[in-house]
Amino acid sequence: MSRVLDEKYQALQAYTPGEQPQDMQYVKLNTNENPYPPAPGVAEAVAAEAGRLHLYCDPQAAALRDAIAGLYCVKRENVYAANGSDDILYFAFMAFGGDGVRFPDITYGFYQVFCDLLGARAERIPLKEDFTVDPADYMVPGGMVVLANPNAPTGMALPRESIEGILRANPDRVVLVDEAYVDFGGESCVPLVERYENLLVVQTFSKSRNMAGARLGFAIGQPPLIDDLNRIKFSTNPSDVNRMTQAAGIAALRANDYAMDNCRRIVETRAQTARRLSALGFEVLPSRANFLFARRDQIGGGELYRSLKARGVLVRHFDAPRISDFNRITIGTPGQMDALIDAITAILEEQSHANR
Amino acid sequence: MSRVLDEKYQALQAYTPGEQPQDMQYVKLNTNENPYPPAPGVAEAVAAEAGRLHLYCDPQAAALRDAIAGLYCVKRENVYAANGSDDILYFAFMAFGGDGVRFPDITYGFYQVFCDLLGARAERIPLKEDFTVDPADYMVPGGMVVLANPNAPTGMALPRESIEGILRANPDRVVLVDEAYVDFGGESCVPLVERYENLLVVQTFSKSRNMAGARLGFAIGQPPLIDDLNRIKFSTNPSDVNRMTQAAGIAALRANDYAMDNCRRIVETRAQTARRLSALGFEVLPSRANFLFARRDQIGGGELYRSLKARGVLVRHFDAPRISDFNRITIGTPGQMDALIDAITAILEEQSHANR
Repeated sequence: MSRVLDEKYQALQAYTPGEQPQDMQYVKLNTNENPYPPAPGVAEAVAAEAGRLHLYCDPQAAALRDAIAGLYCVKRENVYAANGSDDILYFAFMAFGGDGVRFPDITYGFYQVFCDLLGARAERIPLKEDFTVDPADYMVPGGMVVLANPNAPTGMALPRESIEGILRANPDRVVLVDEAYVDFGGESCVPLVERYENLLVVQTFSKSRNMAGARLGFAIGQPPLIDDLNRIKFSTNPSDVNRMTQAAGIAALRANDYAMDNCRRIVETRAQTARRLSALGFEVLPSRANFLFARRDQIGGGELYRSLKARGVLVRHFDAPRISDFNRITIGTPGQMDALIDAITAILEEQSHANR
Repeated sequence: MSRVLDEKYQALQAYTPGEQPQDMQYVKLNTNENPYPPAPGVAEAVAAEAGRLHLYCDPQAAALRDAIAGLYCVKRENVYAANGSDDILYFAFMAFGGDGVRFPDITYGFYQVFCDLLGARAERIPLKEDFTVDPADYMVPGGMVVLANPNAPTGMALPRESIEGILRANPDRVVLVDEAYVDFGGESCVPLVERYENLLVVQTFSKSRNMAGARLGFAIGQPPLIDDLNRIKFSTNPSDVNRMTQAAGIAALRANDYAMDNCRRIVETRAQTARRLSALGFEVLPSRANFLFARRDQIGGGELYRSLKARGVLVRHFDAPRISDFNRITIGTPGQMDALIDAITAILEEQSHANR
């Protein structure tokens, strides 16, 4: 930190992305990447743009927004595209969070960071004992509502009708539904957009569309909310989605069946992995995302994380209240999950030998 | 605008990027794009990344920062990389502009927009009558200093020693030097970085490195300033430079000779174009950038802009105090400049016929 940094930011704790250690080749189940490569057509689309990189991209991203609008049965003016959904969340907190932001105590860690950065009041509402969201908690007066649905790192989802109740109870507040993981079994709120002017649905190409490394997120809402986000974009970085990413996004949407087929494979692998973990004595929360959140008696979350890492398997452990017993395990290929189960089995055996 | 947008932003005037009309094929000299395609090697590097887009990019952009550091003879910790230099400027205004920001009355329009967005006090200091910056204006107490050098849209540059005087006079303020156009004939302040802890130099791959559509900017400064920028990045969007752009940037730096050869060609074309415009009666400011800023008696800046557009040549006109007589003309290929000169010649002939 320099001595000239604005004092507002001097105590800021930035977000910690999942580790990417370079010391060896890991079975990487710690950042919720999709284990399958980008859709056919993406590489060709990107290569075609590479020769035109000396020319600015379209700051309106019109062709990309049209492609998103087509798939989700909305209009271009309902769609906002950005350099990853984190940027959309940040702009939404800026635009709509001035009177405070409500979100669960256990959810995507960036929500608290955005509040800290912006000086917005965070109202952290505890999940119930079983890690579900109680919609009633969000049906009383308060700030903007932000719900990851499915939630992270629990993977648990609310039905659309619960979100609808929250929308009705907050006509003067934006209700942002972060659907990063919705394609793995959640119920999307996009169909509610035309009825609720206060709804902003945020999605990403990082998970279900196999493009975490391309940085592409989008939001769907009524035009006034989309205009607000554009006002901030055009006051910071109008051309934030580059030529290659715009082209990759359009190609990925054309290959929608490829993405949805892969989502189904991941959902199957998730079910199988959950059964295997349960058989090994784990409590596994019911997930509708591309990861599982699991804990086991007699082995701490941090201990299991470290033992797995020593065996070449990376999962994500959060050393935070209520969830430090758990690990978040990304669903990879069946082969990667075999490696996980083998490593856990070996760790538990070693532990039971040591305890004899 | 929605009715829930934070009132702080309700009067915000966003930046207007150069127009990109789709109604016909224009000779496009309005957005300071490089007329030559990306360097050899860029397309291959991008294609190689396309198959790995399901994996996150390195949020540290370590290989890219090492490549930049190598070329500029600094260390990785002196380099910050971002999704275009606009994002760097915005973060720097956030981090260091809390006590106000000083910049010329005629300069890159985004500086005022950042101040408006952030609620920072803008101290706009008039350029001298001849459109030069008077360094003495920045050697008195005030806020952070931001100087585009060469300046836009004038194209005029300060020598390094003038900037050094400003750095010495402001030991407790960041002096940000925006060197977007420096490779076309300016004197870079990068060699001053090791001596001045308050210096932040910002550059971009958009102009001299033929990659406006890839969105890649970087800053060079002492590690504490770089850390401050990273603190904001990791509190908003850690993976802001995607896989393809990181790879394209590394490939473009490997082809440094290609970029510098193209810069020389553009400088030659600029000199030739300036002579031709002078011969047609224009006053042309002495430019060290990849554009010229020019005006002519008896034809208004707006009128010339519109007449050129009607003839298929786009230039940039700013309807702003002191400069509304001028147009900013990007230096394209020699063929594009022939088209410009032909169009201007025809417009002036038409005008002289009409006046007979």
